[in-house]
Amino acid sequence: MKPRSVAIVGASGYSGEELVRLLLNHPHVELAAVTSRQYAGQTLAQVFPKFAGHPRSRTLRFTDPNADLLAKQAQIVFLALPHGVAAQFAVPLLGHGCQVIDLSADFRLRSAATYKEFYAHDHPAPDLLAKAVYGLPEFYRAQIKSAMLVASPGCYPTSILLPTVPLLRAGLIKPDGIIADSLSGVSGAGRKAEVDYLFCECNESVRAYGVPKHRHLSEIEEQLSLAAGTPVVIQFTPHLIPVNRGILTTLYFAPKQHFSTAAEAAVLGEKISACYREAYANEPFVRLLEGKALPDTKNVAGTNAIEIGWRLDPRTGRLLVLSAEDNIVKGASGQAVQSMNILCGFEESAGLV
Amino acid sequence: MKPRSVAIVGASGYSGEELVRLLLNHPHVELAAVTSRQYAGQTLAQVFPKFAGHPRSRTLRFTDPNADLLAKQAQIVFLALPHGVAAQFAVPLLGHGCQVIDLSADFRLRSAATYKEFYAHDHPAPDLLAKAVYGLPEFYRAQIKSAMLVASPGCYPTSILLPTVPLLRAGLIKPDGIIADSLSGVSGAGRKAEVDYLFCECNESVRAYGVPKHRHLSEIEEQLSLAAGTPVVIQFTPHLIPVNRGILTTLYFAPKQHFSTAAEAAVLGEKISACYREAYANEPFVRLLEGKALPDTKNVAGTNAIEIGWRLDPRTGRLLVLSAEDNIVKGASGQAVQSMNILCGFEESAGLV
Amino acid sequence: MKPRSVAIVGASGYSGEELVRLLLNHPHVELAAVTSRQYAGQTLAQVFPKFAGHPRSRTLRFTDPNADLLAKQAQIVFLALPHGVAAQFAVPLLGHGCQVIDLSADFRLRSAATYKEFYAHDHPAPDLLAKAVYGLPEFYRAQIKSAMLVASPGCYPTSILLPTVPLLRAGLIKPDGIIADSLSGVSGAGRKAEVDYLFCECNESVRAYGVPKHRHLSEIEEQLSLAAGTPVVIQFTPHLIPVNRGILTTLYFAPKQHFSTAAEAAVLGEKISACYREAYANEPFVRLLEGKALPDTKNVAGTNAIEIGWRLDPRTGRLLVLSAEDNIVKGASGQAVQSMNILCGFEESAGLV
Amino acid sequence: MKPRSVAIVGASGYSGEELVRLLLNHPHVELAAVTSRQYAGQTLAQVFPKFAGHPRSRTLRFTDPNADLLAKQAQIVFLALPHGVAAQFAVPLLGHGCQVIDLSADFRLRSAATYKEFYAHDHPAPDLLAKAVYGLPEFYRAQIKSAMLVASPGCYPTSILLPTVPLLRAGLIKPDGIIADSLSGVSGAGRKAEVDYLFCECNESVRAYGVPKHRHLSEIEEQLSLAAGTPVVIQFTPHLIPVNRGILTTLYFAPKQHFSTAAEAAVLGEKISACYREAYANEPFVRLLEGKALPDTKNVAGTNAIEIGWRLDPRTGRLLVLSAEDNIVKGASGQAVQSMNILCGFEESAGLV
Repeated sequence: MKPRSVAIVGASGYSGEELVRLLLNHPHVELAAVTSRQYAGQTLAQVFPKFAGHPRSRTLRFTDPNADLLAKQAQIVFLALPHGVAAQFAVPLLGHGCQVIDLSADFRLRSAATYKEFYAHDHPAPDLLAKAVYGLPEFYRAQIKSAMLVASPGCYPTSILLPTVPLLRAGLIKPDGIIADSLSGVSGAGRKAEVDYLFCECNESVRAYGVPKHRHLSEIEEQLSLAAGTPVVIQFTPHLIPVNRGILTTLYFAPKQHFSTAAEAAVLGEKISACYREAYANEPFVRLLEGKALPDTKNVAGTNAIEIGWRLDPRTGRLLVLSAEDNIVKGASGQAVQSMNILCGFEESAGLV
Repeated sequence: MKPRSVAIVGASGYSGEELVRLLLNHPHVELAAVTSRQYAGQTLAQVFPKFAGHPRSRTLRFTDPNADLLAKQAQIVFLALPHGVAAQFAVPLLGHGCQVIDLSADFRLRSAATYKEFYAHDHPAPDLLAKAVYGLPEFYRAQIKSAMLVASPGCYPTSILLPTVPLLRAGLIKPDGIIADSLSGVSGAGRKAEVDYLFCECNESVRAYGVPKHRHLSEIEEQLSLAAGTPVVIQFTPHLIPVNRGILTTLYFAPKQHFSTAAEAAVLGEKISACYREAYANEPFVRLLEGKALPDTKNVAGTNAIEIGWRLDPRTGRLLVLSAEDNIVKGASGQAVQSMNILCGFEESAGLV
Repeated sequence: MKPRSVAIVGASGYSGEELVRLLLNHPHVELAAVTSRQYAGQTLAQVFPKFAGHPRSRTLRFTDPNADLLAKQAQIVFLALPHGVAAQFAVPLLGHGCQVIDLSADFRLRSAATYKEFYAHDHPAPDLLAKAVYGLPEFYRAQIKSAMLVASPGCYPTSILLPTVPLLRAGLIKPDGIIADSLSGVSGAGRKAEVDYLFCECNESVRAYGVPKHRHLSEIEEQLSLAAGTPVVIQFTPHLIPVNRGILTTLYFAPKQHFSTAAEAAVLGEKISACYREAYANEPFVRLLEGKALPDTKNVAGTNAIEIGWRLDPRTGRLLVLSAEDNIVKGASGQAVQSMNILCGFEESAGLV
Repeated sequence: MKPRSVAIVGASGYSGEELVRLLLNHPHVELAAVTSRQYAGQTLAQVFPKFAGHPRSRTLRFTDPNADLLAKQAQIVFLALPHGVAAQFAVPLLGHGCQVIDLSADFRLRSAATYKEFYAHDHPAPDLLAKAVYGLPEFYRAQIKSAMLVASPGCYPTSILLPTVPLLRAGLIKPDGIIADSLSGVSGAGRKAEVDYLFCECNESVRAYGVPKHRHLSEIEEQLSLAAGTPVVIQFTPHLIPVNRGILTTLYFAPKQHFSTAAEAAVLGEKISACYREAYANEPFVRLLEGKALPDTKNVAGTNAIEIGWRLDPRTGRLLVLSAEDNIVKGASGQAVQSMNILCGFEESAGLV
């Protein structure tokens, strides 16, 4: 199989860097171009010494981003850019016939109005919203196969949607009153020179932020509403934790079926277990924890896996579900590569194990 | 004022060490004895070099714990021991007329049955339960003044009760459906040689534990039930976070008063604000955040302060309250010293600023 | 005693913040003014919530720096500014009769030529160099007493000079071939929004920098030369370590006296021990480790202490000396306050224990 | 090519775990057995959830170690055991015809007397010392090819020998007076339940240990002496740093050729550069930094690479060389796999990229 040529626009942020890592080592693609205004002219190896062991890193140089040029270099273009900016590249690239996998929020929503509500500016290319596919392979695999524009999900949404959607679809939980409490590593804030993310401001610090209306709520709620068949509004609290990578999400659900004894919990537990197994038993990147272990970000760091574990609490009648993922891999670049694999007909885990 | 003589039983754990720090520098007490089977014979300065600047640390030696001897040395004895063991020292010390401030869970509950349910053994001294005072000064100041036995609260309970009790007492929130999601530094696990708490097992790791029935639920629910005047059952999820110190708790409440617009939220917000101000405006260690800032453990590390901030979410109709404390200070040893100050008639913040 | 009024120019960096902490709690001073262009108009409590427990923090507001105004407000002014800028404030403040304690490098050197060599611009006020006193109390206590301008030493120089100068003065080590290998916490880089000091760039990273000619060499070598009575050139390698605070320095010396057996080492060891004891036995902030323990930054974090320990290696004939300090306290702001205490005739440890 | 069957004895420590990771994903081997007394009976996936994505991890169970059985299961056996214990397995395994790659110190030295001096007990199998090959592929590739017993080097020795040996062999530096100052992540202490390595004891702590005669000196000096053709004694100071992985070593050398000007430094620099290039230009895992960048452990974490950078200091006449490696990969398990690849005739980087 001839390798597919790919490019990364915005390759110097944390998601961009992780795309570089994954695509340099991918068996079926050739990394044809990486862009960065800041590092234009330098090789990958100069900017990221950790990739210097890969021969391609010593020849491939960052360039200024140019859609026309990129369209000549690459069949598939990954956009690792801020929202608003991503759309400006997506439009001409699609026009040139490229397939675009966008890691920004620009094409994740179906509604331009919701986009404006959460991102505080008009959508730059509303016509494309209907054509974009939400790049969560576990739910949109078929659509991704033939997509020209994949909107790769946000890190928090991935950590929330994968544990929640199967339960909603199966009608096992009430769509009301869902709470998602998420803990994210600092790479989620991006490689931005801001005082808030300096080592000494994050180390030995634990804090919430973006409360109560974080932007990711828009795509989370849109997807949950689709799964539930009814509008879903959730409570979402993100926290910043002093680790480089990882999101741990704790979800609080009200099961539709009442339970207050161990016996009733066991019956319900069987259904939950069956629901998750049906959804994920054959998924290469979803790991269901069925024993005593609970999800831990260190088990997934550097991998495209998401761990999901759960507990029923007969004292409160609630179902707790916990998930752990690497925010930069399954929460961003790994998932984008997974979508690319589907798009290209590669084995879905190619370059991801 | 002649200094009061105090002793610490179990002075080599993290809470014991922090008691040493606070009591060495306390203006009105003399640290008369510190015990530790492991370090018996060594000076404080040898075991804890960081205290070596204090002259007393170079003469005071750890001894094996002996209640009879301690009763001769100290008027007030702090117990920083595992549950079960603490009661074994409290009984003879009280018999000798000492005042006891116990940092373990042994005397925090009013019900021996609840103790057995959560701690899995019979209570070692059930007769004392009625005599013990729950050492949360903000709520039990009057009782602490004349107590012989103070049961200093757990770290998680402190972080949950201080934000919750005033709202329950004022009838502003429903006593049902409360969720407390807590993030704790690793010192909360104690200075125990266990693989789970090794640096490499905790660093770059975020995980929940003790789900869904952590032992601290027993005292949290007992106190909340007293505040609400009705039995309260909550959902509590503790997580382990790679910081040395600090607990951040995120609380999810349902206000009794419905609100769904910004105007309604403003009205309700005034009530919440007033409720907290009434409860805490004169409290030396409770810091109400009224502006944009949210609690952050780094703002309270090393201090006896607890930060409390809150947000109303008109989208969900929920009230979010966040608190940050140092688990070893306000969550343990600082609070114990605060109780001692009350007990002895010292200024409440003596040795704590 | 009427409190002395003090001001801090540049109070929002890490050294400035630590000065705030120390001076707010100092028994003999009143913090009269704090400046910060960025935060002008905000209270201390708003910018640094952790100081909110101190009443003064809720009334004292940051102002734009203005030397004329500061001279009216304060008798003593601390400058926590970048080099070059500090001198611009020192000149008018001294003209107004203020005593100035400068934490920058501007007045640490006696030679304007050396300044230019290391700081790459002409000295902004060379006439003042002869009037400034190097604020290392252990060596310049007498001169500090009557100084108008104290040049508080750098963090690395403090960690190197305190262990080295007594040995050089006593002629126990050769002035040639000294190596200082230092490991610093990230706060040493200041509260600057630069990518290199983001959490994810420092966490899980260990690296050297400023090799081989770091600016601090200028003051280190000037002071060592004075102590040795002969020009001293040393090798100095600073490293960045993922901790908030602390410098650990490992020094490699060649003793003048040859030794290669345990017996010879014991004889020499007695001399070294005596030398250090003579220099530091009565120093409140120098802690000599004489047993098995080696210096550890966690023993000095948050304190003005420096730990010094040493080993003779009969295999190599070398003397290893290790020191640990808090780079922001003994390495910066604590030491500056110590100088102020001397200057004002306060007890030297006032506000520092 | 039929896969080679391999086993790991002591697979639950940090080196063992990393061997599992590397061998599970190795294209030419099958992991036939893993032993651990503590986890016998459990699957790899149960003990290490992070490997659960690999099918083999769900079927392969830890067993009690048994040399006779292992010899039937595996052609190549990795020993990740404490020194002293490793030899007890090596002897029978070699007797059964297995090839043994030992990660302990048991076979790294040629001299049983040196072993006894540094490890404080008689060598358990002195006859094997002459047969063992020191598993540093860059220097012993030819011998490894036909070895039955490979003694894989220690983590510190690897970080010191790779930068030093070429310079000694080329006669560019004096063999006297070498200093190696090393900073290691906490995984180097192993997965041992000891208080010293708890999160709270290591986080926010920087300290030296094992000064001045760390056990690794024995193999370092033996290898350096072989390279220099004369006995070499060095100064070595290991430090513990709060990162999971990585060793940064700073080496201080005296070049034989005197230099004190930039011009002289440039001439000497050419020779050093040429020396390193000759030694390592074709080495897959040695990365020579020739520009402004200095080694950083984050560039090598998780990889088998070692970064080497250097600076000449005309002020002191010294050559500084810095290296960065992952202590568990190139410093332990990765290097062991590299040796296995050589032994088996696989591509040397198989399973290591």
